[in-house]
Amino acid sequence: MNFIGAEHAFADANVVLFGAPYDSTTSFRPGTRFGPSAIRTESFGIETYSPYQNRDLETDSRVHDSGDIELPFGAPDRALDMIEARANEILAAGKVPFLLGGEHLVTLGAVRAAAKRFPDIRIIHFDAHADLREDYLGVKLSHACVMRRCHDILGDGRIWQFGIRSGTRDEFAFMKAGHVVSEPFSAKTLSSLSFPNGTPVYLTVDLDVLDPSEFPGTGTQEAGGLRFAELHSALCEILTRFNVVALDNVELSPALDSSGRSTALACKLLREELLALAS
Amino acid sequence: MNFIGAEHAFADANVVLFGAPYDSTTSFRPGTRFGPSAIRTESFGIETYSPYQNRDLETDSRVHDSGDIELPFGAPDRALDMIEARANEILAAGKVPFLLGGEHLVTLGAVRAAAKRFPDIRIIHFDAHADLREDYLGVKLSHACVMRRCHDILGDGRIWQFGIRSGTRDEFAFMKAGHVVSEPFSAKTLSSLSFPNGTPVYLTVDLDVLDPSEFPGTGTQEAGGLRFAELHSALCEILTRFNVVALDNVELSPALDSSGRSTALACKLLREELLALAS
Amino acid sequence: MNFIGAEHAFADANVVLFGAPYDSTTSFRPGTRFGPSAIRTESFGIETYSPYQNRDLETDSRVHDSGDIELPFGAPDRALDMIEARANEILAAGKVPFLLGGEHLVTLGAVRAAAKRFPDIRIIHFDAHADLREDYLGVKLSHACVMRRCHDILGDGRIWQFGIRSGTRDEFAFMKAGHVVSEPFSAKTLSSLSFPNGTPVYLTVDLDVLDPSEFPGTGTQEAGGLRFAELHSALCEILTRFNVVALDNVELSPALDSSGRSTALACKLLREELLALAS
Amino acid sequence: MNFIGAEHAFADANVVLFGAPYDSTTSFRPGTRFGPSAIRTESFGIETYSPYQNRDLETDSRVHDSGDIELPFGAPDRALDMIEARANEILAAGKVPFLLGGEHLVTLGAVRAAAKRFPDIRIIHFDAHADLREDYLGVKLSHACVMRRCHDILGDGRIWQFGIRSGTRDEFAFMKAGHVVSEPFSAKTLSSLSFPNGTPVYLTVDLDVLDPSEFPGTGTQEAGGLRFAELHSALCEILTRFNVVALDNVELSPALDSSGRSTALACKLLREELLALAS
Amino acid sequence: MNFIGAEHAFADANVVLFGAPYDSTTSFRPGTRFGPSAIRTESFGIETYSPYQNRDLETDSRVHDSGDIELPFGAPDRALDMIEARANEILAAGKVPFLLGGEHLVTLGAVRAAAKRFPDIRIIHFDAHADLREDYLGVKLSHACVMRRCHDILGDGRIWQFGIRSGTRDEFAFMKAGHVVSEPFSAKTLSSLSFPNGTPVYLTVDLDVLDPSEFPGTGTQEAGGLRFAELHSALCEILTRFNVVALDNVELSPALDSSGRSTALACKLLREELLALAS
Amino acid sequence: MNFIGAEHAFADANVVLFGAPYDSTTSFRPGTRFGPSAIRTESFGIETYSPYQNRDLETDSRVHDSGDIELPFGAPDRALDMIEARANEILAAGKVPFLLGGEHLVTLGAVRAAAKRFPDIRIIHFDAHADLREDYLGVKLSHACVMRRCHDILGDGRIWQFGIRSGTRDEFAFMKAGHVVSEPFSAKTLSSLSFPNGTPVYLTVDLDVLDPSEFPGTGTQEAGGLRFAELHSALCEILTRFNVVALDNVELSPALDSSGRSTALACKLLREELLALAS
Repeated sequence: MNFIGAEHAFADANVVLFGAPYDSTTSFRPGTRFGPSAIRTESFGIETYSPYQNRDLETDSRVHDSGDIELPFGAPDRALDMIEARANEILAAGKVPFLLGGEHLVTLGAVRAAAKRFPDIRIIHFDAHADLREDYLGVKLSHACVMRRCHDILGDGRIWQFGIRSGTRDEFAFMKAGHVVSEPFSAKTLSSLSFPNGTPVYLTVDLDVLDPSEFPGTGTQEAGGLRFAELHSALCEILTRFNVVALDNVELSPALDSSGRSTALACKLLREELLALAS
Repeated sequence: MNFIGAEHAFADANVVLFGAPYDSTTSFRPGTRFGPSAIRTESFGIETYSPYQNRDLETDSRVHDSGDIELPFGAPDRALDMIEARANEILAAGKVPFLLGGEHLVTLGAVRAAAKRFPDIRIIHFDAHADLREDYLGVKLSHACVMRRCHDILGDGRIWQFGIRSGTRDEFAFMKAGHVVSEPFSAKTLSSLSFPNGTPVYLTVDLDVLDPSEFPGTGTQEAGGLRFAELHSALCEILTRFNVVALDNVELSPALDSSGRSTALACKLLREELLALAS
Repeated sequence: MNFIGAEHAFADANVVLFGAPYDSTTSFRPGTRFGPSAIRTESFGIETYSPYQNRDLETDSRVHDSGDIELPFGAPDRALDMIEARANEILAAGKVPFLLGGEHLVTLGAVRAAAKRFPDIRIIHFDAHADLREDYLGVKLSHACVMRRCHDILGDGRIWQFGIRSGTRDEFAFMKAGHVVSEPFSAKTLSSLSFPNGTPVYLTVDLDVLDPSEFPGTGTQEAGGLRFAELHSALCEILTRFNVVALDNVELSPALDSSGRSTALACKLLREELLALAS
Repeated sequence: MNFIGAEHAFADANVVLFGAPYDSTTSFRPGTRFGPSAIRTESFGIETYSPYQNRDLETDSRVHDSGDIELPFGAPDRALDMIEARANEILAAGKVPFLLGGEHLVTLGAVRAAAKRFPDIRIIHFDAHADLREDYLGVKLSHACVMRRCHDILGDGRIWQFGIRSGTRDEFAFMKAGHVVSEPFSAKTLSSLSFPNGTPVYLTVDLDVLDPSEFPGTGTQEAGGLRFAELHSALCEILTRFNVVALDNVELSPALDSSGRSTALACKLLREELLALAS
Repeated sequence: MNFIGAEHAFADANVVLFGAPYDSTTSFRPGTRFGPSAIRTESFGIETYSPYQNRDLETDSRVHDSGDIELPFGAPDRALDMIEARANEILAAGKVPFLLGGEHLVTLGAVRAAAKRFPDIRIIHFDAHADLREDYLGVKLSHACVMRRCHDILGDGRIWQFGIRSGTRDEFAFMKAGHVVSEPFSAKTLSSLSFPNGTPVYLTVDLDVLDPSEFPGTGTQEAGGLRFAELHSALCEILTRFNVVALDNVELSPALDSSGRSTALACKLLREELLALAS
Repeated sequence: MNFIGAEHAFADANVVLFGAPYDSTTSFRPGTRFGPSAIRTESFGIETYSPYQNRDLETDSRVHDSGDIELPFGAPDRALDMIEARANEILAAGKVPFLLGGEHLVTLGAVRAAAKRFPDIRIIHFDAHADLREDYLGVKLSHACVMRRCHDILGDGRIWQFGIRSGTRDEFAFMKAGHVVSEPFSAKTLSSLSFPNGTPVYLTVDLDVLDPSEFPGTGTQEAGGLRFAELHSALCEILTRFNVVALDNVELSPALDSSGRSTALACKLLREELLALAS
């Protein structure tokens, strides 16, 4: 079973979906492991055509869905290695890897692969939470530390954060010290963001950046988030204006939303991202 | 059990509620059959007075609630005939039929009755979905085709659509070709809409036009919808500015919203529509 | 995606699963359309090995899962034709069709196919409800009439019912008149049931025959049902003692059981039936 | 809306249903106020015919459903007075009042009325909890004290309890001292219970006497309860062998059981009691 | 277990939290009794640091959490006395009592205590409902009458209401007659509100003033409410601009929101209020 | 917050409760991390008195509740070390450690501590699943391998399993080869089990040994389990007849049971075990 419209063979595709159904380090309510399969199953409830972009997955995109990696719960080191390996294979074939989480920690595997291939890569990060802790209860490979681990790899001034509205005083001090560039609460400065021509970009979207009223299906909900329309236009802008070489959507936890609208939104957003990538 | 405040006898009423608890052609998640009874039961949780309009159902309206039609599941032809017959009885008595769905297909029964009596009728249609398919898996009497079937009856330029944000490429092409008039995503052009004096209007409101955050209790949720305040003011405008001779609210599926707020919203909106009709 | 362990090609299999995700005539709470896909997805939560029978789907069975038929909602005639056609193909290839519902009406399609090929076929029927109405609200192709329609085909004395504990006075009178053979409330007489050697048998299991405490995930729950252990041993006996040429499991409605145990039970029972068939 | 089959006028009936949607003293999870309306609405999912008793509500009973009393939340004294008044009216007309709770406190209103009219009345009580506290947090009119309040009226040796499996040490000491007659955990001694001919009996059934697997829809669930079949046969025996002059079923809390089977069971049990009363 | 960061001893604190888990007069769906404990338990899912105010509960506030009062269900008079007594103790110690409901009736206990100590007190009231009925089904101590009871104490022109969007015609007439000052639907006039220097203010926040999309976890949901950002900034303004001497947050009913986001929002808002109070 | 009646200081207690809220290796549906806190919170819904044993936690037991260990998600090695350390402290003080899971892997920490102190210890194990895999997806520290890891420590013939009804062919072969002693499906041979006088016993109860109808709140449900009454009497027998030096109850996943009865049952069973231990 693949995501709707993602029916190209690997060889023919320019974008490759892969799922990392992993949530072992989730500190509050687990369940994101069921995100990728929910997205595939429920994708048959949406259309392949986007009236926003006037494009259709069936005719205007070349996407392969390579399914989920079977990851060992309780062994984050090995899980990250497996994710990095898969992302690397896709990058090596000259294609864009699109990772579906799982908890946010999985991003680290894909970023490692992308940073090896594109040493000057930048990260654009949407999230309700800063994820900049040095460690969480002594554990360094935790969802709550994932952007700090990315910073370990990339160094200062390479990560742009939007929509952050929760964190410790230390995490916000880390932002304010300029280690990362952050626009808390919103994403209004995106239009003025520019990179040197062709700069490779990794885009990571923790879906809890959305307001919990529109996206309750996530483990740690923070009131006061972005609306779908805001996130939709921000992502379309990024995917058309920048050279996104790898990306992910993470933290959908389907069972926490009995109405199903969070999964439906995640499917719709994924369609829009795939079509914007194809433009 | 009747809708709160709808306690007039048929003979004394100028508006007549009737329910069509039918969802046999629903292609995704069924359950709208429970819409009409949920609206009646939960209506006792709202007030009869509207502070928006400073009117009260008990003193300012004359509404009869004629209950639900017992429809045969799995036999859409007969179900539509029964709905048409009931709508016809109400129209024949010089009253306004107000149909509560049920899936959107039920609209077709009421439109047939209204179009026979008012051949120059226009339809104003609020929905997330175009519902303009020629057929769905070979079936022509499907919720996904209902506005196309209405177009079969009325012809070009007689249907106005607001808020549509999902459909196939073909359906959007049908709009763009001018067969129907459509404002996708929103309802901002409503204020400039005008008809010749006294033109009869059928108003059909698929409640999934609302944003799923405000109205999760529906089978096929589409992010990016109208807010309650927008829909409320649009409907009040239509009901006071135009000659609405028949109308419906459809696609509430109560069990999909465990919080109950979708049914509560549907009750409140119905009160507001009844009071606007009474003005 | 197939049922766990059902990985043989059609040509190599002796049993063929197929799903009929249909519930358009359901008169109370719909949702059985999601039964077949839930069974496939959740089957990966059970083992392929049965400690009850000391057999393993991977080594001791030859099952092909041919997926679901895409059925048109709201058109029961055509749906039954499509089910009959699929069952016929499987029977024509000398294999046993195993139908997964969907509502109980789908049984009629498979029974038609089986009765044409095996004119002397008997039906063994487990259910909480008699399903012997002549019609339901004037509709003859309804889940509530399915065994009556089977009786129309087979005539008197060819249907054995177990576990029935709900019906109208007329339905129970129909049983008592001997048109069908019925043991209400339980299945204790099964051990004394015998047929002439090689008599072909159709086995239909409406899972609501189980007690709602063990199987809440069905639309019309009747207290006082069979326990899993009783149904399990009854089905194993039937499948090893009789010549079952076609069979079905119907009426799982996954969303009505938020705990998921109904789907888990349905998966386990299906494994046990497949292994008993293979003995 | 009435309970299915309870369509006789008051004057023609010999049994009169009335609801007391009250739960203000519930100490754990409230919600039984929704019990009576759920029973009425969902009763249309069961048949009027009982295959257990071969009787049908439509032809073999004469029941009037007088609807719910609108009780003031937060004022138990007044609520009990209103319940007593209604029960008294029914008794005065020579009919059997059948009260639907609500929390167990409501029983006290009906017992007061019955004890005035039948001073030698006995109570047969099914429950998981003893309900024999002298007070609860200083409050005497509490669901946790209802049988103690009944004992205040009737005195020693007039109350028979079955199925009790929870209480304080003091409550069990009260039983052991013989103030009430109690068979904890089960109802096996019922068959040996006898009263002088014609002794009036009040039957009160707290539905949480059932095992929570079969009846999860109640506020305080106690594992190890009666099975439906046990309670069913016990109640049928009581209603046919004794002179039951008033009775109640209490403590259904529909929203706590998302599967709906608790309400379905309550409907079925009520049908069976009405038919046994009619024998 | 205390609210996160509220770890000061009573003697050291300037603000004292206390819970009133009471909902006996709730007329629709009860459950607010579980509000205070849910807020404490779930508070460990939020941070103590506020990026909105750049303050941290751990370093910038002095809050004591005195736990819940054990209130007798079904005895509102006694419950209010107990609440008043606790509020009085806190006020007598020169601290600010912060009451967590429970239903809105509990406010009356705290207002009584505050009005005795500060006879010239004003009330600022956020709510979807006017709560200005003279009585409800004959009961004067009801959640639906709580602001009318406050008016009985304070008299005309002392209560300011924001966000009201539901009530009877009589309640809105009471507002229009000037007995209370009301801005229906919104809170835009707050910035122009001013009191004589040092005027003591009681702030009562019925959380159902929020839009049900953001806060579904409450018993009587009214579409068209305030957004979190609006309420957040309004409360921060009040708490920094006025002399708030006592306050409450009421009507969270956690079980009505299976996603948990309502409780999460209530925790976040409480943190923000405590930090604004500390400024 | 402690378990009801567990109010002794550590020094005065003979039994010490401690929670291990950990589920990082859960392979299907996580959520057991919330088990210990749910048991504590909901324990206030049961009585301290047992009518089964005529004992009361308040007067007849000496239990200390030492709360939960804060375990690092995603680091099973460290988590097990922390659990072992806590169990060791309790054993070193001459008390019985009673561990509340969490997933079944946590048992390994407590068994390690107990086996060091009591080298001749036996394990009695109740479970639906054998948990005897050598590894799971290459991981050895997994819930699915926990009894195999215990066997690694203790060797052949030291583990008795009851109620197992699911496993791979290899796991059942491991049993049949005599490495562990197993009674699949039931616990009828328990009465004939005897050990040399004073033999130390570790008792581990995976609550999914219960039938899912009585205990749906667990991640991997297997139909055909033990009834509460069976498990209750088995555990009381073990705790009174054998020298149980350490024990655990694991695998309650509260959120999977929206009715709450699984947590209620777990509380009641824990009370019964504590009282049987105290005899």
